[in-house]
Amino acid sequence: MAGSCFGKHFSVSTWGESHGKGLGVVIDGCPAGLPLCEADIQRYLDRRKPGQSQYTTSRKEGDQAEILSGVFEGKTTGTPISILVANTSQRSQDYSEIASYYRPGHADYTFDMKYGFRDYRGGGRSSGRETIGRVAAGAVAVKILEEIGIQICAYTHSIGPVEITPERFDAAEIPNNAFYMPDAKAAAEAAVYTRQCMEEQDSVGGVIECVVTGMPAGVGEPCFDKLDANLAKAVLSIGAVKGFEMGDGFQAARARGTENNDAFVNHGNGVEKETNHAGGVLGGISDGSPIIFRAAVKPTPSVAATQHTVNKKGENIEISIHGRHDPVIVPRAVVVVEAMTALTLVDALFEGMSARMDQVRKVWGR
Amino acid sequence: MAGSCFGKHFSVSTWGESHGKGLGVVIDGCPAGLPLCEADIQRYLDRRKPGQSQYTTSRKEGDQAEILSGVFEGKTTGTPISILVANTSQRSQDYSEIASYYRPGHADYTFDMKYGFRDYRGGGRSSGRETIGRVAAGAVAVKILEEIGIQICAYTHSIGPVEITPERFDAAEIPNNAFYMPDAKAAAEAAVYTRQCMEEQDSVGGVIECVVTGMPAGVGEPCFDKLDANLAKAVLSIGAVKGFEMGDGFQAARARGTENNDAFVNHGNGVEKETNHAGGVLGGISDGSPIIFRAAVKPTPSVAATQHTVNKKGENIEISIHGRHDPVIVPRAVVVVEAMTALTLVDALFEGMSARMDQVRKVWGR
Amino acid sequence: MAGSCFGKHFSVSTWGESHGKGLGVVIDGCPAGLPLCEADIQRYLDRRKPGQSQYTTSRKEGDQAEILSGVFEGKTTGTPISILVANTSQRSQDYSEIASYYRPGHADYTFDMKYGFRDYRGGGRSSGRETIGRVAAGAVAVKILEEIGIQICAYTHSIGPVEITPERFDAAEIPNNAFYMPDAKAAAEAAVYTRQCMEEQDSVGGVIECVVTGMPAGVGEPCFDKLDANLAKAVLSIGAVKGFEMGDGFQAARARGTENNDAFVNHGNGVEKETNHAGGVLGGISDGSPIIFRAAVKPTPSVAATQHTVNKKGENIEISIHGRHDPVIVPRAVVVVEAMTALTLVDALFEGMSARMDQVRKVWGR
Amino acid sequence: MAGSCFGKHFSVSTWGESHGKGLGVVIDGCPAGLPLCEADIQRYLDRRKPGQSQYTTSRKEGDQAEILSGVFEGKTTGTPISILVANTSQRSQDYSEIASYYRPGHADYTFDMKYGFRDYRGGGRSSGRETIGRVAAGAVAVKILEEIGIQICAYTHSIGPVEITPERFDAAEIPNNAFYMPDAKAAAEAAVYTRQCMEEQDSVGGVIECVVTGMPAGVGEPCFDKLDANLAKAVLSIGAVKGFEMGDGFQAARARGTENNDAFVNHGNGVEKETNHAGGVLGGISDGSPIIFRAAVKPTPSVAATQHTVNKKGENIEISIHGRHDPVIVPRAVVVVEAMTALTLVDALFEGMSARMDQVRKVWGR
Repeated sequence: MAGSCFGKHFSVSTWGESHGKGLGVVIDGCPAGLPLCEADIQRYLDRRKPGQSQYTTSRKEGDQAEILSGVFEGKTTGTPISILVANTSQRSQDYSEIASYYRPGHADYTFDMKYGFRDYRGGGRSSGRETIGRVAAGAVAVKILEEIGIQICAYTHSIGPVEITPERFDAAEIPNNAFYMPDAKAAAEAAVYTRQCMEEQDSVGGVIECVVTGMPAGVGEPCFDKLDANLAKAVLSIGAVKGFEMGDGFQAARARGTENNDAFVNHGNGVEKETNHAGGVLGGISDGSPIIFRAAVKPTPSVAATQHTVNKKGENIEISIHGRHDPVIVPRAVVVVEAMTALTLVDALFEGMSARMDQVRKVWGR
Repeated sequence: MAGSCFGKHFSVSTWGESHGKGLGVVIDGCPAGLPLCEADIQRYLDRRKPGQSQYTTSRKEGDQAEILSGVFEGKTTGTPISILVANTSQRSQDYSEIASYYRPGHADYTFDMKYGFRDYRGGGRSSGRETIGRVAAGAVAVKILEEIGIQICAYTHSIGPVEITPERFDAAEIPNNAFYMPDAKAAAEAAVYTRQCMEEQDSVGGVIECVVTGMPAGVGEPCFDKLDANLAKAVLSIGAVKGFEMGDGFQAARARGTENNDAFVNHGNGVEKETNHAGGVLGGISDGSPIIFRAAVKPTPSVAATQHTVNKKGENIEISIHGRHDPVIVPRAVVVVEAMTALTLVDALFEGMSARMDQVRKVWGR
Repeated sequence: MAGSCFGKHFSVSTWGESHGKGLGVVIDGCPAGLPLCEADIQRYLDRRKPGQSQYTTSRKEGDQAEILSGVFEGKTTGTPISILVANTSQRSQDYSEIASYYRPGHADYTFDMKYGFRDYRGGGRSSGRETIGRVAAGAVAVKILEEIGIQICAYTHSIGPVEITPERFDAAEIPNNAFYMPDAKAAAEAAVYTRQCMEEQDSVGGVIECVVTGMPAGVGEPCFDKLDANLAKAVLSIGAVKGFEMGDGFQAARARGTENNDAFVNHGNGVEKETNHAGGVLGGISDGSPIIFRAAVKPTPSVAATQHTVNKKGENIEISIHGRHDPVIVPRAVVVVEAMTALTLVDALFEGMSARMDQVRKVWGR
Repeated sequence: MAGSCFGKHFSVSTWGESHGKGLGVVIDGCPAGLPLCEADIQRYLDRRKPGQSQYTTSRKEGDQAEILSGVFEGKTTGTPISILVANTSQRSQDYSEIASYYRPGHADYTFDMKYGFRDYRGGGRSSGRETIGRVAAGAVAVKILEEIGIQICAYTHSIGPVEITPERFDAAEIPNNAFYMPDAKAAAEAAVYTRQCMEEQDSVGGVIECVVTGMPAGVGEPCFDKLDANLAKAVLSIGAVKGFEMGDGFQAARARGTENNDAFVNHGNGVEKETNHAGGVLGGISDGSPIIFRAAVKPTPSVAATQHTVNKKGENIEISIHGRHDPVIVPRAVVVVEAMTALTLVDALFEGMSARMDQVRKVWGR
């Protein structure tokens, strides 16, 4: 497993390059009896599809999911689910030039160092199209979570310096703006800021926040496989993500213990926490309150402005990257964060099934 | 593997509770022929040992490492290395009270939810003493890294609101102050701040920074097992860590592409980067520049100030935690960050050995 | 990973059902720089293809391999290799009847017990067509082995009571007869025996032997992942295999130590063994002599003769299985044994790359 | 994981050398709430202890198990269970000679080839003492199986040419003779045969049979992780085992389909099989009938008779191995087969917990 597999129980293997024949994923370990059809997957893929607003690449991809195995008469059979998305809109000529030099902020140089050469067309395996397999698998994981009452909601928390405001938070607003922000006013400001950057041939980053509700207490492992550690890995494994915060995150490092501790309280419905600085996890295990984390997304490295770099001959050169690029990748990454969260949670839930003898007896006992 | 195993190639299994007979680790996958003795491990364990300054718990633990297997005539044999640290200073009576309630900010409640009951003595498996196995294994990993010219240096970047200043950065200063800060003035200010919090029966958090030098380009996997994703998991798996930033981290989310991209340049010695906003990793693979990341550590949850919580009967109560606790855990966590970094890097290096046919031929070819 | 993944380093995920849209495999961990084209894979798939003699099913399948990713300009790129074989000759109506009852010797009943229902068309995932993904991946593994001088040769050792004779052993004869036997006379006798069984509406089993030459000494792990243990798993994971013998196998259990021990000797070219009762492995590690093992293959469970069984309502019934079935599966399983052997050996070789510090330094050292 | 870890869910890491400080195991993934004490483990260790009859080595080892973690107030806590057995009877001088040459049938040569050198004292890691960790972990796995009604019973099926007879089979007889044979007459004949071989300075092999009762149908994975494939690996991973047969095994290869198929029948209590040629597994999944398999154990390679071999200088020499060796290892291996079977079954049961959505809902549903 050279890193294109994720998950120990609900195990996904993604494959495919930006300009190859297609991309896809094989899921091994999906339980039998889950209702599943291609539309369930397409709904998620459509959220990451390019070409949906002026702030994403103008490249149009059909990105149609086809289920090749593992589903029979509308239900999963327990055997591997293979999902294929054929590539249909590759203009390889756009990319032939980048074969000869290393784009700053991209993986061109490191792929060459690791493998000796690379499929340079559109970034090859390091393209954002690699996330298609993740999102397709994540859509299946989300269906499992729904069956046990768990919901995931990610959205854009900030675009460059423009942040959402808690007072204006409105989850219903998320799908209404091109930035997937739960705050219409912030979204409008983000649009102004992004257009300005685009005019200056530059690109923009931002922060994505994700909230999980309905999570039972007791999920996650206490040592290396802490739920927050696994979420951090899942989210940092997304191409442009450079930081991860659980609950108060870096702010907690500045707080005092009395400020940061969440008091337990019983209002008559069992143990609850009065606050949620921890983000829903204590000692790596879910505490029953919402799981909250944030991911920092860097600005798209492909900018039209002139940049200095080195070509494969080792010569210093100047380049200017044209072609169909996203000025900001944050909105399209929101669904990828949801997908990686779903994969992580399903795996943690399945891992936890054998944590107690009474649970073992529930399934296998006489 | 319910989460107490880490690493696919250099695979460590830690075990042990705060107040059990001892703690330890089994390392499977250490190459044969590495010089190793108990002093190599002890040197690292001593850095996390309690009782070394007024800012750490007054509990004294010998924490002596004993190698039980895998080393013969001063060298590793390639078979599992078992390391044992016996517990010698357990005062179980200190902890008997906490059997009956859930301490805010601790894993008492979540362990009960997950397992049905818990070894409550000193936090049991969720105690900071759990990191002993990590540090012992990390000390072995560090020796492997040294053999191929890789160095790891972690230090405290901030204590509460007190940050180090780049202009005063002095690596030689790190072991000279109780906070492991590379800035004597900041360390002095941190001491004042911490003492003040201690007087107010409160605790303090902070940020740890880690720099890896000598890293070859081309290490790390391009998809889920990105080097930064695996570092994030490794670091977030340390008990009190709530955030992780690679390179510029959350600051990158506010920057523009032209600011955040690191230009490649050839000054005559091959490809280099003019800046290092990325923190030494592009597309999940090391780029040959120093690897830099930060970890946010929350304030110790054990505070003497009065707190609200719930007991096991579900009654709302008030508690005040006395006993031997660290007012700030950051300094003792520095070596744990180094250990987890070493484990992650060794695993990535070993994973990368079969990445290219020419490397395969180097080892197995005729 | 619910069991459709194999291999830790050269990791394959197979998928697909007999009568679904297709079957395939994703290989994660193939080194970059291996020359590879579809013909390399097709050559192996053609050896397991049905319809090539009167002793295999008359079903004709094109079984054309298509490489969807991981190969660029004729070489592997180090990223996942996805291989697809579309299903083209499914006659689902042949199988509609078996939806209602449990065929003896097949997995119909156990799939229903495990998953609650099954894709009954042609056996679904439990069909022999499942091995297509294995053979496609095995073909890639064979190419890696060839690069370092390792050859695998499997053949039929016996068909029912008809065994090959050492004196007549002729490797060149293997592809010349429908049974892949290295003994023309035995093959002729096997043909007579099989035809007789076919006339009696019955089926035939046999034994496959496999020999690996060019294997370096020192490959395999000393404890649970012994090379022979991993070969045993690989071979027993093939549908109809019921037994495995390394070297002398069960005969060794009847021998005395002085008979079974292989003396070491130096004829001037280093350490060799005078005999090879062990089958090329000592303590789970290759000893440099040929690796030899045998696999027992049961007779095809689909027979036209009348059988007793139970239907899904729990009623006792009589059935007679018609349709296009192999009277003997042994010849078509020969290439599957080679494929599983190749996958196991490549994985063991890659695992062994980090077994010694001098090997680590060869790849990563300065 | 260089092969000293076994199991994905109930994951054991064994460590230790014959003449080091001790041997042991860490179990990660044991469910919380299982009653466990040291006597549970000691009972199993005592069955593999040397020095219990004239047919085993006269070396006396206390082999006392100590539980170091993971158990609190008489129950497992869900955290890693570390078990230590200190070495007490090492006479290193017995073995100093073997440092200089390669014993036929032992792993001396292959360890040197793999690792460059070896801990030669008593075979080091390749000693049969390595199984101590397996048996200790197996004893815990057996307790889990007992809780859900599964029993494992292994016994000696043959010693050299002396086989048990079905008509005389008596399970109660197993613990009554030094060979653990369920047939008093065969045991008496085995004793005669073994004494004769000992007089001739030779050693003896044999076959172990194992029967699992109470196994629910539906356990095991359908592709690579077939229950029988995993059992084969588990059993072949035991040092001296050279062959594995499921049910009729190699005999099935000689049978016809109509002979080898097990008819399903309903006698009023649901689906059963009239015969059990398959050994309780169909398509890799348990079918509810007893699981039956056999393991071929080679004769002990340490014989006092003169043997030819090569020393480390490459010179041809003659040796005669004296010291305290087992003339036959089969009886002591019986409990190791049980232990490996228990580890395999527990892992398969835990894997199967997430195979169906209704099982997932049983544990996590609302």
